[in-house]
Amino acid sequence: MGSHSDLALMNDAKKILEQLKVECEISVLSAHRTPELTFEYAKSAVDRGLKVIIAGAGGAAHLAGFVAALTPLPVVAVPIKSSNSIDGWDSILSMLQMPSGIPVATVALNGATNAGILAAQIIGTSDKAVQKNIVDYKESLKEKVIKGNEELKKQKA
Amino acid sequence: MGSHSDLALMNDAKKILEQLKVECEISVLSAHRTPELTFEYAKSAVDRGLKVIIAGAGGAAHLAGFVAALTPLPVVAVPIKSSNSIDGWDSILSMLQMPSGIPVATVALNGATNAGILAAQIIGTSDKAVQKNIVDYKESLKEKVIKGNEELKKQKA
Amino acid sequence: MGSHSDLALMNDAKKILEQLKVECEISVLSAHRTPELTFEYAKSAVDRGLKVIIAGAGGAAHLAGFVAALTPLPVVAVPIKSSNSIDGWDSILSMLQMPSGIPVATVALNGATNAGILAAQIIGTSDKAVQKNIVDYKESLKEKVIKGNEELKKQKA
Amino acid sequence: MGSHSDLALMNDAKKILEQLKVECEISVLSAHRTPELTFEYAKSAVDRGLKVIIAGAGGAAHLAGFVAALTPLPVVAVPIKSSNSIDGWDSILSMLQMPSGIPVATVALNGATNAGILAAQIIGTSDKAVQKNIVDYKESLKEKVIKGNEELKKQKA
Amino acid sequence: MGSHSDLALMNDAKKILEQLKVECEISVLSAHRTPELTFEYAKSAVDRGLKVIIAGAGGAAHLAGFVAALTPLPVVAVPIKSSNSIDGWDSILSMLQMPSGIPVATVALNGATNAGILAAQIIGTSDKAVQKNIVDYKESLKEKVIKGNEELKKQKA
Amino acid sequence: MGSHSDLALMNDAKKILEQLKVECEISVLSAHRTPELTFEYAKSAVDRGLKVIIAGAGGAAHLAGFVAALTPLPVVAVPIKSSNSIDGWDSILSMLQMPSGIPVATVALNGATNAGILAAQIIGTSDKAVQKNIVDYKESLKEKVIKGNEELKKQKA
Amino acid sequence: MGSHSDLALMNDAKKILEQLKVECEISVLSAHRTPELTFEYAKSAVDRGLKVIIAGAGGAAHLAGFVAALTPLPVVAVPIKSSNSIDGWDSILSMLQMPSGIPVATVALNGATNAGILAAQIIGTSDKAVQKNIVDYKESLKEKVIKGNEELKKQKA
Amino acid sequence: MGSHSDLALMNDAKKILEQLKVECEISVLSAHRTPELTFEYAKSAVDRGLKVIIAGAGGAAHLAGFVAALTPLPVVAVPIKSSNSIDGWDSILSMLQMPSGIPVATVALNGATNAGILAAQIIGTSDKAVQKNIVDYKESLKEKVIKGNEELKKQKA
Repeated sequence: MGSHSDLALMNDAKKILEQLKVECEISVLSAHRTPELTFEYAKSAVDRGLKVIIAGAGGAAHLAGFVAALTPLPVVAVPIKSSNSIDGWDSILSMLQMPSGIPVATVALNGATNAGILAAQIIGTSDKAVQKNIVDYKESLKEKVIKGNEELKKQKA
Repeated sequence: MGSHSDLALMNDAKKILEQLKVECEISVLSAHRTPELTFEYAKSAVDRGLKVIIAGAGGAAHLAGFVAALTPLPVVAVPIKSSNSIDGWDSILSMLQMPSGIPVATVALNGATNAGILAAQIIGTSDKAVQKNIVDYKESLKEKVIKGNEELKKQKA
Repeated sequence: MGSHSDLALMNDAKKILEQLKVECEISVLSAHRTPELTFEYAKSAVDRGLKVIIAGAGGAAHLAGFVAALTPLPVVAVPIKSSNSIDGWDSILSMLQMPSGIPVATVALNGATNAGILAAQIIGTSDKAVQKNIVDYKESLKEKVIKGNEELKKQKA
Repeated sequence: MGSHSDLALMNDAKKILEQLKVECEISVLSAHRTPELTFEYAKSAVDRGLKVIIAGAGGAAHLAGFVAALTPLPVVAVPIKSSNSIDGWDSILSMLQMPSGIPVATVALNGATNAGILAAQIIGTSDKAVQKNIVDYKESLKEKVIKGNEELKKQKA
Repeated sequence: MGSHSDLALMNDAKKILEQLKVECEISVLSAHRTPELTFEYAKSAVDRGLKVIIAGAGGAAHLAGFVAALTPLPVVAVPIKSSNSIDGWDSILSMLQMPSGIPVATVALNGATNAGILAAQIIGTSDKAVQKNIVDYKESLKEKVIKGNEELKKQKA
Repeated sequence: MGSHSDLALMNDAKKILEQLKVECEISVLSAHRTPELTFEYAKSAVDRGLKVIIAGAGGAAHLAGFVAALTPLPVVAVPIKSSNSIDGWDSILSMLQMPSGIPVATVALNGATNAGILAAQIIGTSDKAVQKNIVDYKESLKEKVIKGNEELKKQKA
Repeated sequence: MGSHSDLALMNDAKKILEQLKVECEISVLSAHRTPELTFEYAKSAVDRGLKVIIAGAGGAAHLAGFVAALTPLPVVAVPIKSSNSIDGWDSILSMLQMPSGIPVATVALNGATNAGILAAQIIGTSDKAVQKNIVDYKESLKEKVIKGNEELKKQKA
Repeated sequence: MGSHSDLALMNDAKKILEQLKVECEISVLSAHRTPELTFEYAKSAVDRGLKVIIAGAGGAAHLAGFVAALTPLPVVAVPIKSSNSIDGWDSILSMLQMPSGIPVATVALNGATNAGILAAQIIGTSDKAVQKNIVDYKESLKEKVIKGNEELKKQKA
């Protein structure tokens, strides 16, 4: 993530990854304030054995693109509606609209949980245990809706 | 893709996947006009051995989300600025803003090439040959810029 | 509606329908978390005797379109400014911009009351009692404005 | 429709209504240039036996709301991206955002065909023949996609 | 104004008009809930001796255009960011984008004070006393800035 | 107007003013390229006998506000979608959102004709002949709609 | 700055300039309420020895452009999301979209600190001491990120 | 600039700089395709004697921010409405909304000429000859407006 202030939000990615049994690490690395460190992090990611990188940032959010420029790994981008943001549009567009050749995988505004799930889905393409966890997780979402619906019907009865 | 009229654009994804030596298939499947077929396609994707699904659609673009709801595979979403679109915003927002639990990986407006590269990067997390092709592809982009720059300098000399 | 969190808002539709003497039922059905159930609900709607379906959802709101794809009934769509929404634009555009062939009838952002009235107007095209209730309801709106105006004039006098 | 220049577009509504065997009439009536005539048209609509009114207009598009204020019939609104429009946003928002109590059923920008289908769906709630025509129409859309898909596969074979 | 809920805001117009010594009256008249009354009000405005009409409304704000369609008087439009509004854009665009032939004079979002000043400026084109009051009012604005600036300099000294 | 390139559009204001028998003059005066001249023009406007000023400009359109700051006359602002404009939003917002105390009367994007009519309506508040011309002009708009409607009906007969 | 209400925000520019050892003065000058004073201020700026002017304003923010029209000095523009602003878009666009020939240097919404740094960078092009202070300031930003990262790692250990 | 396709536009910056007698060099350097080269370019800029850097790019335009992160020099950012752009909003927001600490000086969309003038104004803060050239240039703009105005008056005479 690009700033310490994004920690509360980006922890959602960590939580869902742990729930889906995918290992992860978490760092603050700014494209603009620590460009050299971010450069090193991205360049060494493959050799360090990383499979996917999630980058969350607000405002003119260059972090995901910066990292994607320096690694062949898929980069998941979380636009963040920070206090300096214009309703999140700045963060969304500076992630989404990457030029041809250097994609990032953008999820919903503040969608750290979805970024974690997407990262797990990517890992799951070659790890059947993780893919199974995703199937189970989706089943649990379904059951929550069904239960809520049953309660709704009881209330009306 | 959601409509035959998206074929010219979505072929860009096929071309780059072929260049990166990733096998792919291509179909027209509409969330709204052929919901049953799309349902079947998404449900059977894992068993048919697919690893990633790319969904391109314009307007109120539900295709990517529809598919993502029915498979644990990562779904890459390509918003398309179709003739019915409001500058592409409708397609972008109806892909990007997926609810918590069901992510899709959105790329740039009309970014079919980037969707192909992202799909290859996902395959590449467990296929070193494909990952190598991505590294080589990025190197070729770099060289094109450098050559262009040299010509620019010659012209001025 | 697509989520339990939409219940407080969508109850406005139920209230106005009851006031206009139109029977209704209410369910939580998610296009993304319970696609199979939603599929069944939409497919069986005509045979169960429904006349109109109101679908409210936030974010990338596919519910109305999903249902409309599977039934010949008119579907009224209520875009919802949920906590995950980008000022409601995502929900509006993913409902409003349905492709040619599969319309939904979109009302104002958070316009659950208007969705109920519109559903009643649709019922009223073949049920003179309901149409009469709408005429009376509109008359009551008019009287409220007139009374407010009279009070305004008294205050100034 | 609000202007003669909208005729080419709004004819799409007429065509699909004829295809679905729903009778219709077509008039130019401006909320701003012929307010008295529009007033009379809306006021007398129920007594003249109309079931649904489709209103298409561009710019600050008050026509649909003006008519809805004066009739208990459902009013379908077609926002039009006219030459004076700001990408259609003006027309969309001045139709969509009707105040509580006076809904209109807004369809996609330039969505005259969808307005016709929606009107037919409303008629179809009490006319099984029309509802059957809608089911058949949707089936024809599905078949077009399937055929297109088969051709796509042949080309690749 | 279109609704009682706009009273607090629209009173700003009344206050500045009183300060500039311009007589005014204030009414709630809805284009959608009391169309007949609004029709009468607009039609009779010239004969009742009105010179300018200020119309404030939120959402799909048709009031100003409705009135302008029925009178040769200048109509000043105040877009209002009401609770149902999409950041005020709906109200702005449904006032600003009036079709050719029927202008309204739109001021800033929630700009009731400016609407009053503009109305006074219009009256002032044929009433030198009112024009003089506007000149004095602007002079008072200038003096407030100058005094604030002097205090700012004292604080730093 | 702020630039020579706006002449073709702003001539529409001149034409309608001539049609409504209101005298006018036309100048190019830039807030940014000829600030001193614009300053003089605005300052001397009342003494030169002007009643209303129409200011048309594109991009960051400061002309109307600049003039309004220096005169008690009503200023009508025409936002222009120039080649440098972002769909006209820049011009609209830099005219519409004038601060409290200094209003301008903004009309539709590229609405030079409406600016002329609005100026005539303002003159018409104290000149019954001009007001009569506006009434006649509106009548002519109505007749055009009615004739168009009759032709439409003949074509179908 | 254009209004006293901007003082709290614009003080951020003063603070960072003091930290970077760049002298500055601060005034309230309104393009619309004190045009003559602002005119004098801008015209005399070069002769008074100023090197850069920072202009912050909200709404239809003409201040930066007004000043830039009257001086050859670089003008840094700070768009402000004031209470009258439409999410800041009005202020951004009326600063950013200056016509060809009269640029201003626009920074982020509410970016007074960045305006101060940019002004210092401009001074620093000819003042090595100030340029050194900027280098040191950026180094301090980097260290803050690194420290935060170390704490993050400790917490997890 | 970030791409060879931006050359035609960015040449406008070169032309005006030559007219204002400011030396410049021009390169294509992509934040995403040649990150290492861009890194080196930015890092060495001060030592190579550069005073200002102009960065033009379209889409998710990270170039200006990338460079600004690595140099204490002022960076002028030109958002470009490229073929992949969403009306230029992506490029504008990913330049304008830089985080606190790392400003760039953003000019109008496609405003390469203004970027050149702004760079010259920055140079002119310590080079009176360049500042004089800017004064003369602005005078020439003024004269063009005045001449155009005279011709306008002749045509009408």
